[in-house]
Amino acid sequence: MMSFKQKVKGVAKMAYEMGRSDPRKIIFAAKMALALILISLLIFLKEPFQDLTRHSVWAILTVVVVFEFSIGATFSKGFNRGLGTLSAGGLAVGMGELSALAGDWEEVIVIINTFVVGFCATYAKLYPTLKPYEYGFRVFLITYCYITVSGYHTGEFLETSISRFLLIALGAAVSLGVNVCIYPIWAGEDLHNLVTKNFMGVATSLEGVVNHYLNCVEYEKVPSKILTYQAAAEDPVYSGYRSAVESTSNEDSLLGFAVWEPPHGRYKSLNYPWKNYVKVSGALRHCAFMVMAMHGCILSEIQAPAEKRQVFRNELKRVGSEGAKVLRELGNKVKKMEKLGRGDLLYEVHEAAEELQQKIDKKSYLLVNSELWEIGSRPREETDNSNSKGLFNMDQDRKFLEYKSLSEAVLDLRSVEVQNNWDGKTTDNNNISAVPASIANENMSMKQPQSWPAHVYYKPDAKAKVEESKTLESASSLSLTTFTSLLIEFVARLQNLVDSFEELGEKANFKDPLEPVVVTPTGFWNRLFNCFRS
Amino acid sequence: MMSFKQKVKGVAKMAYEMGRSDPRKIIFAAKMALALILISLLIFLKEPFQDLTRHSVWAILTVVVVFEFSIGATFSKGFNRGLGTLSAGGLAVGMGELSALAGDWEEVIVIINTFVVGFCATYAKLYPTLKPYEYGFRVFLITYCYITVSGYHTGEFLETSISRFLLIALGAAVSLGVNVCIYPIWAGEDLHNLVTKNFMGVATSLEGVVNHYLNCVEYEKVPSKILTYQAAAEDPVYSGYRSAVESTSNEDSLLGFAVWEPPHGRYKSLNYPWKNYVKVSGALRHCAFMVMAMHGCILSEIQAPAEKRQVFRNELKRVGSEGAKVLRELGNKVKKMEKLGRGDLLYEVHEAAEELQQKIDKKSYLLVNSELWEIGSRPREETDNSNSKGLFNMDQDRKFLEYKSLSEAVLDLRSVEVQNNWDGKTTDNNNISAVPASIANENMSMKQPQSWPAHVYYKPDAKAKVEESKTLESASSLSLTTFTSLLIEFVARLQNLVDSFEELGEKANFKDPLEPVVVTPTGFWNRLFNCFRS
Repeated sequence: MMSFKQKVKGVAKMAYEMGRSDPRKIIFAAKMALALILISLLIFLKEPFQDLTRHSVWAILTVVVVFEFSIGATFSKGFNRGLGTLSAGGLAVGMGELSALAGDWEEVIVIINTFVVGFCATYAKLYPTLKPYEYGFRVFLITYCYITVSGYHTGEFLETSISRFLLIALGAAVSLGVNVCIYPIWAGEDLHNLVTKNFMGVATSLEGVVNHYLNCVEYEKVPSKILTYQAAAEDPVYSGYRSAVESTSNEDSLLGFAVWEPPHGRYKSLNYPWKNYVKVSGALRHCAFMVMAMHGCILSEIQAPAEKRQVFRNELKRVGSEGAKVLRELGNKVKKMEKLGRGDLLYEVHEAAEELQQKIDKKSYLLVNSELWEIGSRPREETDNSNSKGLFNMDQDRKFLEYKSLSEAVLDLRSVEVQNNWDGKTTDNNNISAVPASIANENMSMKQPQSWPAHVYYKPDAKAKVEESKTLESASSLSLTTFTSLLIEFVARLQNLVDSFEELGEKANFKDPLEPVVVTPTGFWNRLFNCFRS
Repeated sequence: MMSFKQKVKGVAKMAYEMGRSDPRKIIFAAKMALALILISLLIFLKEPFQDLTRHSVWAILTVVVVFEFSIGATFSKGFNRGLGTLSAGGLAVGMGELSALAGDWEEVIVIINTFVVGFCATYAKLYPTLKPYEYGFRVFLITYCYITVSGYHTGEFLETSISRFLLIALGAAVSLGVNVCIYPIWAGEDLHNLVTKNFMGVATSLEGVVNHYLNCVEYEKVPSKILTYQAAAEDPVYSGYRSAVESTSNEDSLLGFAVWEPPHGRYKSLNYPWKNYVKVSGALRHCAFMVMAMHGCILSEIQAPAEKRQVFRNELKRVGSEGAKVLRELGNKVKKMEKLGRGDLLYEVHEAAEELQQKIDKKSYLLVNSELWEIGSRPREETDNSNSKGLFNMDQDRKFLEYKSLSEAVLDLRSVEVQNNWDGKTTDNNNISAVPASIANENMSMKQPQSWPAHVYYKPDAKAKVEESKTLESASSLSLTTFTSLLIEFVARLQNLVDSFEELGEKANFKDPLEPVVVTPTGFWNRLFNCFRS
């Protein structure tokens, strides 16, 4: 008994939580209940018309079926239902009168007709482009069969279909009246919010991915939910881009409903370009795929050593935060339905990407393993002493090297590279999540060495083994290249996103942010605005 | 009139095509029509029972609504419908009897009850985890209201609900009988086929992406459908991985139906692990994201020059084809429901990836721009004459260089690098799709130079401009690194795919391919099999 009480408590708490997070749900449930009592009242009142009351089920059915969460869905279903009922009624009445002419063969003709109509309607329903009208086909079949059967009994085809249609019209009127007039819930508004939310999600993911990468956050064991691409709500980095990537079908269905909605609120024009919201979201998704691929670098088994990541720390961080800033800015613009200002939104992020690229060029010796170059392998000196210097000593080295001649510099290259004590077994596993540059890099490089086949790495030949581990080491450095390339490609794709945003702004007639009424809360835009003023 | 005739012809052709590509659709339509005439016949025969005929609409409605394409969907909807009807009937009868006791206040109590029940049912329906039972809630509401309304008129609550339930049972029986007994269509079978199809799609995409990359196939203008992630059926490379990525919701709904299906055909065990099919498909999707990212390299604006790609041609090609082979092999195993053989399926692809990695290490000087290294910039000699040699002369160069000392080799590095006549304006745009190594590389590198902002590249300062274009050049070389890294990461992810396949094979009790009955058509496995025999 106690546990039942607790269960009830739990359910009540869940219900309260749902209502608090989206009060529209409470309103919707109340509206639905209101429509139901209205239709019940109408049927009570209409008691004198015995015939209508007998078929009252149709009115109730219509209310329950047509009443959808958003206005667009209600209209679209109502239209389907009306069309299906009307055409089926007409056909059934025609067929009924026709088969009545056949005399003795009437039953046979009715059966054959039912089969043919049933077959055709069901077959047509399966055609892919007719899929959205599936519901209409069902209503068509129900109406046709019902009118045929009950008309056969009473012989009053026309009367049956008319009374039925009247009740359906009554139900639809109540349904639409309540749903549209009392606190309407618009699918278009939902679509708009979904697109805005996607922008914020991808921005969060981008920042998170770059930060995780720089802080060498590693998954102890990659959650199998990520490996099999299932929803994992607890990881904001993952769920941010995932929800943007996954929202396709949601967007499509909202779009399907939004086009049915009349102009309302901020969406004033007829033929409002809802399609363009989906297009902007698609362009955002195209960017999100890059974030996803970058996240793949974190999930990867081959990891770049922490020290090398730190070299590019500032540049990576700047591109990441500038990219996220652009996404947030665009998201806010979509939310506030504003056009872009006259400045180049992408200027800063392009600058940052350019800087990152230049840094990579200057430091690309860190990314390659020049020992293996076939155009001339350097003599292997014993540089055990250089192993003891980490990146801490690197700056002094660099200053020194800059004054050396080239050939000397190259000969000394090995001491500039981070120490590669791959074969040595230093085992300070504890400070992985900390950022110090002195982490022994084999801790970072292989998470699950068993998943890369042993035969490749543990060849009996000792010399081969050394070469293999060198291979692996350079693979791990290249992974850093991959991350930066993906980040730069992400920046390149932003242009496409901005283009589709501008198309949306043009078509949807977004307002101009330079009009004096608008107060822009973001400092960047104020700065830019003032720039243009002065 | 002529155009109408043509339209009819067109529709007939479409219908014929659909039937030819999936004959199950014709069978399903015929089954549906059969169920409809059966229920009509039953109602005709039952004419003596006036009461049943009057409510015949319920039987027809049940048939039309419950009759779904697959057995699982039929069961699940039928169950929903049954449960909703039963509980609503019970509640309505109880409430009706209760409100009858209220005497004068009966109407008020009926109205209040209806409101409360309508509100609670609708609100509960909106809770995310109850979403699959949405249909049951609708049926519940319809039944409750109908019984309340008609019971109020007649005072026979119990009778109404019983007659209604009998008719629904009749409709469900006819529906289930016809659907299960005549050529059943199983959702599980569909899920199985979908997973197999995804394997083949990703394999095709992988091969296509690698080939496109090596042949420098470029999109003249990237289709905006790809940029906004919409379906574009005409591109097999794109649609292959896209359908695998997009099939999530389809898989989930098929899974939802498949768990309702009894053991049948090849799926003999109770509690068949359908979930694991979805898991395998998820792991495949995790691999497909890498293919997607590789495709991103082709769509990218920064492209690696053709000559450098050719250097890695054989290795890239081998990894691509071995990877596709593994995917096809796994797809076939899933299709034939066989376990893996005793050999290491991934041996060859890992070898190929290792080889690719070694080649990259040996040639990584091609990927970086050592001129910009801050540890010592080489003197800029005028090497205009070396610009005329392309890769054709490279082999001789290399042989020569291998005998040089290191410092000389590095000094001569620039002539080994492919010619970088970035600033020169050679304009042979026509032979882009051909593969010759002598293509001027600026044709490959920037597709839409306007989309990278002009201010970055066209600085007034001439020296800065030269440096910028060098930056861009090395960015384009790094893009090759990215492609190969992604390919190697793809190979690394295959292990996870094989693991989830093995889990599926274990749980679903796949047969052992080493049993002598099985004839394996793929040459590879026969070879491997013979290996173990001898």
